[in-house]
Amino acid sequence: VAVRPENVLVCGGFSSGLQLLSTALRRRGATTMAVEAYGLRLHRDIIEATGLALVDLPVDDRGAAVDRLGDTVEAQAALLTPAHQFPLGAVLDPARRRRVVAWAADTGSIVVEDDYDGEFRYDRQAVGAMQSIAPDRVVYAGTASKSLAPGLRLGWLVLPEELVDEVVEVRRCHGRFPSTLDQITLAELIVGGAFDRQVRKARLAYRRRRDRMVAELARRAPDVTISGIAAGLHALVHMPDGHTEGEIIERAGARGLAVQGLRDFTARGFERAPALVVGFGTPPEHAYSAALARLAAALDRSE
Amino acid sequence: VAVRPENVLVCGGFSSGLQLLSTALRRRGATTMAVEAYGLRLHRDIIEATGLALVDLPVDDRGAAVDRLGDTVEAQAALLTPAHQFPLGAVLDPARRRRVVAWAADTGSIVVEDDYDGEFRYDRQAVGAMQSIAPDRVVYAGTASKSLAPGLRLGWLVLPEELVDEVVEVRRCHGRFPSTLDQITLAELIVGGAFDRQVRKARLAYRRRRDRMVAELARRAPDVTISGIAAGLHALVHMPDGHTEGEIIERAGARGLAVQGLRDFTARGFERAPALVVGFGTPPEHAYSAALARLAAALDRSE
Repeated sequence: VAVRPENVLVCGGFSSGLQLLSTALRRRGATTMAVEAYGLRLHRDIIEATGLALVDLPVDDRGAAVDRLGDTVEAQAALLTPAHQFPLGAVLDPARRRRVVAWAADTGSIVVEDDYDGEFRYDRQAVGAMQSIAPDRVVYAGTASKSLAPGLRLGWLVLPEELVDEVVEVRRCHGRFPSTLDQITLAELIVGGAFDRQVRKARLAYRRRRDRMVAELARRAPDVTISGIAAGLHALVHMPDGHTEGEIIERAGARGLAVQGLRDFTARGFERAPALVVGFGTPPEHAYSAALARLAAALDRSE
Repeated sequence: VAVRPENVLVCGGFSSGLQLLSTALRRRGATTMAVEAYGLRLHRDIIEATGLALVDLPVDDRGAAVDRLGDTVEAQAALLTPAHQFPLGAVLDPARRRRVVAWAADTGSIVVEDDYDGEFRYDRQAVGAMQSIAPDRVVYAGTASKSLAPGLRLGWLVLPEELVDEVVEVRRCHGRFPSTLDQITLAELIVGGAFDRQVRKARLAYRRRRDRMVAELARRAPDVTISGIAAGLHALVHMPDGHTEGEIIERAGARGLAVQGLRDFTARGFERAPALVVGFGTPPEHAYSAALARLAAALDRSE
């Protein structure tokens, strides 16, 4: 399915796009957005600040439990990370993809596909976007934050025809016009092929970082397990028995390393066994070895 | 009065800053913002979209009638263009400045000082910012749109201490983080002196454009009068008797020139004699002579 340029709205990063879209949905009468019970608190705050209520979907190894939509969960929109659930790492399986699209079609609801690291798949071809199978029900949200830099604040929404005017109007009366310079630069990068080369280069670099982290932890902290690393820039590091998240975060902090616990990304009532959410894309290249050593030391029981 | 860096919030142009600030004021219970009866419709739309009601202040040759505040007008905030009223061109006089600051202090209200072209004064030293006389009541809003380029989307708010945390929180939960690259670049320009040089250069260039426009219209359309040109990038062109704004706009459009009528910038009930609001900053340098010729032709009764 070809994307119509008129349906693409450039915005200041994913968070800005989510706010515009949520506001537009609220304005057309939506009251509730379903979200994955594991994710970024910022996204939850952004949605709630528009007046929409949140309802949580459990997540298992086939992705979000979208079968709840229209069954036990009433919502007019659902925000999902189908390519690589953040932070747990699952891919939304094909049956569930069909299910959520059918729900959206039956109920006139909107699916927001947060493809935050769709470009960074290490084990197979990129997972196809849901937007391509239901462009009139799915909003595709992309970002240059991982492929170029988060500080650029460049993201884009591919909108169903029926939402374009409404989201453009919200953008106008929120005074949110993205930088023309940045847009021209990104367009040049895309048209000239440089963006694709950058994504491939970044994918290779991130994959190497992931492999180094896995090797370092296997050597220095063999009783931790790692999951969610077939794609993306984060790993879920499951901790040895008897350790709490707070304890390891403190040990890492004492070594000058900031890490977060899974609890920070978990909705109330969905707590799991303690784990760290370790972003391996952040440290600059020259500091990566030292950061890995600190992480391993924080997890190493003998230290 | 020195500005504390912690009180400066960089935002995506003035319109974005106005939306953040209006949202924060609405959240703390404000219901109404006073605005000048002549101004940009976009700003009115942005304020109203946050849930604040608008109330209009008349404008005369001493600026906005701020004496109405707390008298016939009830509002918890006022948006003003004290340095150069847009689009009429008056400077808010000293007695009125004192008056509006006293009103804000007495009532705990907030004045938003839109200093949209404070740098572009042609007849005297720059008019001092109101913010400097009452930094705890006045929000200063600046922009790089006129001095650098509107497409950059770079503006800044200097906030009273009591508002900083609230506006920062609105910015966070609206997902509106300005580009780090742009901020670093602007900081470099300011610290290194290049920004000041650019403002001086731009002021001279704009002044030349203004003088050329005045000369061209005096020659080709001697029965029009021009006002509001002691500062800024716009002129108010008062039309010969018997012409309507729509007629001249159509004649200009037929010649490939887009101009706007004063009516587009006027609140209901405040209509004045027909005039054009002519922005002379927009045409690229190579097209400026042709644009002036078209404007003169549209206003020339003999054509």
